[in-house]
Amino acid sequence: MNGSSTSYSLRDLVERFGGELVGDPETRVSRVATLENADAQSVAFLANPRYLRQVGETRAGAVILGPDARDATGAPRIVHANPYLYFARVSALLAPAAAAAGGIHPTAVVDPSAQVDETAEIGAHAIVSRGAVIGARAVVGAGSTVGENVRIGAETRLNPRVTVYGGCTLGERVIVHSGAVIGADGFGIAYDEDHWVKVPQVGAVRIGDDVEIGANTTIDRGAIDDTVIEDGVKLDNQIQIAHNVRIGAHTAIAACTGIAGSVSVGRNCRIGGAVGIAGHVSITDGVEISGHTSITKSIETPGVYSGVYPFEPNRDWRRNAAQLRHLAELVRRVRALEHTLAELMGRRS
Amino acid sequence: MNGSSTSYSLRDLVERFGGELVGDPETRVSRVATLENADAQSVAFLANPRYLRQVGETRAGAVILGPDARDATGAPRIVHANPYLYFARVSALLAPAAAAAGGIHPTAVVDPSAQVDETAEIGAHAIVSRGAVIGARAVVGAGSTVGENVRIGAETRLNPRVTVYGGCTLGERVIVHSGAVIGADGFGIAYDEDHWVKVPQVGAVRIGDDVEIGANTTIDRGAIDDTVIEDGVKLDNQIQIAHNVRIGAHTAIAACTGIAGSVSVGRNCRIGGAVGIAGHVSITDGVEISGHTSITKSIETPGVYSGVYPFEPNRDWRRNAAQLRHLAELVRRVRALEHTLAELMGRRS
Amino acid sequence: MNGSSTSYSLRDLVERFGGELVGDPETRVSRVATLENADAQSVAFLANPRYLRQVGETRAGAVILGPDARDATGAPRIVHANPYLYFARVSALLAPAAAAAGGIHPTAVVDPSAQVDETAEIGAHAIVSRGAVIGARAVVGAGSTVGENVRIGAETRLNPRVTVYGGCTLGERVIVHSGAVIGADGFGIAYDEDHWVKVPQVGAVRIGDDVEIGANTTIDRGAIDDTVIEDGVKLDNQIQIAHNVRIGAHTAIAACTGIAGSVSVGRNCRIGGAVGIAGHVSITDGVEISGHTSITKSIETPGVYSGVYPFEPNRDWRRNAAQLRHLAELVRRVRALEHTLAELMGRRS
Repeated sequence: MNGSSTSYSLRDLVERFGGELVGDPETRVSRVATLENADAQSVAFLANPRYLRQVGETRAGAVILGPDARDATGAPRIVHANPYLYFARVSALLAPAAAAAGGIHPTAVVDPSAQVDETAEIGAHAIVSRGAVIGARAVVGAGSTVGENVRIGAETRLNPRVTVYGGCTLGERVIVHSGAVIGADGFGIAYDEDHWVKVPQVGAVRIGDDVEIGANTTIDRGAIDDTVIEDGVKLDNQIQIAHNVRIGAHTAIAACTGIAGSVSVGRNCRIGGAVGIAGHVSITDGVEISGHTSITKSIETPGVYSGVYPFEPNRDWRRNAAQLRHLAELVRRVRALEHTLAELMGRRS
Repeated sequence: MNGSSTSYSLRDLVERFGGELVGDPETRVSRVATLENADAQSVAFLANPRYLRQVGETRAGAVILGPDARDATGAPRIVHANPYLYFARVSALLAPAAAAAGGIHPTAVVDPSAQVDETAEIGAHAIVSRGAVIGARAVVGAGSTVGENVRIGAETRLNPRVTVYGGCTLGERVIVHSGAVIGADGFGIAYDEDHWVKVPQVGAVRIGDDVEIGANTTIDRGAIDDTVIEDGVKLDNQIQIAHNVRIGAHTAIAACTGIAGSVSVGRNCRIGGAVGIAGHVSITDGVEISGHTSITKSIETPGVYSGVYPFEPNRDWRRNAAQLRHLAELVRRVRALEHTLAELMGRRS
Repeated sequence: MNGSSTSYSLRDLVERFGGELVGDPETRVSRVATLENADAQSVAFLANPRYLRQVGETRAGAVILGPDARDATGAPRIVHANPYLYFARVSALLAPAAAAAGGIHPTAVVDPSAQVDETAEIGAHAIVSRGAVIGARAVVGAGSTVGENVRIGAETRLNPRVTVYGGCTLGERVIVHSGAVIGADGFGIAYDEDHWVKVPQVGAVRIGDDVEIGANTTIDRGAIDDTVIEDGVKLDNQIQIAHNVRIGAHTAIAACTGIAGSVSVGRNCRIGGAVGIAGHVSITDGVEISGHTSITKSIETPGVYSGVYPFEPNRDWRRNAAQLRHLAELVRRVRALEHTLAELMGRRS
């Protein structure tokens, strides 16, 4: 994956991306590496202070780091306020994503009514259904299935084995990883005395530009109106987005989180892994939620929210957790003690 | 998805589905809509009181609502005790599910020994293995894989990219969404001093009639006997059902829930999202479990059960959660206080 | 699945696998069964004391059990210290896994530069990309996608519809279940003022020998270095392994667990279902973690760790959980009581 043979001097890099260059500007790097495993052709970075010690020991040809760590190494380096972001840009320069090859694989099944841009790539065994539109330089990966009337924007990439149900829309430069399912029916069921009746899910999914969707993530179509993922949203693997959810622009969500129906998440939120958000809840912009937290009501104030049971050795947990079932009773006992003692003190004074 | 051109008068609807008609019986509707986005050709519904205000403002041609909200709008309306169920029926009438097209796509790979009903539809790149039986009007979606000797009942629909391992059975009118995997090996491993030995999983999965299985849900085959999903069970996305689980008829389970091996869930249960149920646990009929709850022992009494850590601002959570590790100690301190105070009071009297 | 016609005498079994034979050594068995559903041709086992009562009632031709249960039945039996392990071996003997059929299905798409061993089996609609290497007796299941330069070791089996991204390596005798995705991009994003920038994920995934990977499990490629799954690791369904995680040899992880980036899990650990492990955490060898526990910091001492909110009837939970938000305050109140009472007692003495 890192067979790039192109190299760049540090001078090239600061001309493109800014930052302060310390050391020989002609130092050339051709690949990225971790501080631990770098060699003279590699550029590494330091963004997490826990790896500070490794900077002194690295054999990297160059290092990207923040102002605080400016002098932690004598190696040629680029100092920048956001070294992780800087590294992202350098890495994209050194290992650019593959471009669409263009063309339809002979084993792909493309409906004659579909409009596939001539610069788009349709992989082996991929399926593009009636009325679908595939934009310029878009990629439909091997074995992916694009339903009827789906619209896929320019430079969007479906990796192998993605499913998009009929009627859904993806913007430009979207990346969807394998196994993701976009537009399956929402979980709409109505109870009729002793059994469930399916509620048809006639909405769709609308996905903005620059969204990334992780492997095996599922985004259900709306019951009536659409489920909406706004521009720049980043979804990790195995996330579940239920029908009629709206995720605000530039919100990032870590793996295994589940968001129930009709939830609205604001813009620029950061949601940890394995979070659960209950149905119809509304979360304002700029909220951060710790991993494994269960959000059961709306959040109207930006900030960090948490609700995780702290782990401990099983023996201690058993002893402590058993008392949770008596916590309200304990509170009553404390109140009674306070009352008795106050009375006692009152009588004494 | 809502391109249906057929329209129905409210009179038609109450003749089919009952309910009380208020307003012009000749009002015609051709699609469903939310209260917020409805127009004169749409029928909307009100089932959740939180949307009551929207009823007064809707431009819907007609509204379905409960007796309590009978007078919340002057629009033509149908009053019914269960407006959501009523809406489900109207929606299914206006936007009927696509029927099987019938026929085998030329790119499908169907073993000569498989029995495919002539009214069944086998999609592009689908695979039907040796000895499989596909019932009348059933659909095997594009890219789906049906293993050896699988039996798929009439009118059952596998959406694209479903996998059914060999030997499993699906009843009639079952709907399976993309990415679901039915019949993979259960997690059977035996420890041998310093490594694990695989326990062959020789059971299968048996799924009843009218079951719905969400996207990327997994149902493992039994270790020896079968894993069983009874009639009318509704499973949302990304649910994990381990080997030898039995889910009772008409139980509904929300997304991301995991059920460990040999669990038995009763009939007509309602299980929230991201619930975990530990192995060998038995849950009686009519139990409701809140989302994100961990069920670690059997439940013998119907009712609602919960166990969710309440979230709060991170700063408060840190302060409170830290005390959980000292809860048993706190209880001892309160007991000591009670004892000392009781003694003190005794001496005083 | 249990159509094996070969039968073995108990004498055959103890000659192969050891154990003490009680009863007629010529008793023949041809399949495995549960105690409850066994017949005279079946061998059943007892490993969990909760099923002890069933041993007395079973119609099994023979039973495998531990020394403690030696006399719980009069049926022919094999007594062994680890009856579940013994059963695993007998079951594998009676129902051996299917061997690779060998050969490339005519609908498979195999790049001319790929090296496919002539004894390997490439299923219908499978895809093997440029530079991939498929070992002896390996199986690439129907509809599976093997990326560029992937290496798949001897006797490894990809079930239908598995995806392996480019550059990843699987050892020998690995089993991967349907829907698993190996090598999708890790969730690497850097924040730039008001939006996210993707960090290219240029590492890969390296999987050792004798690993099993469950259905719809996802293992992300490394950001720079590789994600590593060591020999003998057993992963259940719907597990998420983030970039640059290392899972030590012979560790077993139950379904729905999510492990965040750069986590290191030791050898011979046992991790329950729906566990979450936060990023950069390190867990030593021999740790056991209860299901649904959230691990937020490193564990340096072997042992069992837990952190699960105990469930209870919803009414009780509401009452008790509400007090959690006041727990730190309650501790202060108890401290104040102790102080006041101590003063009071001091004055009395």
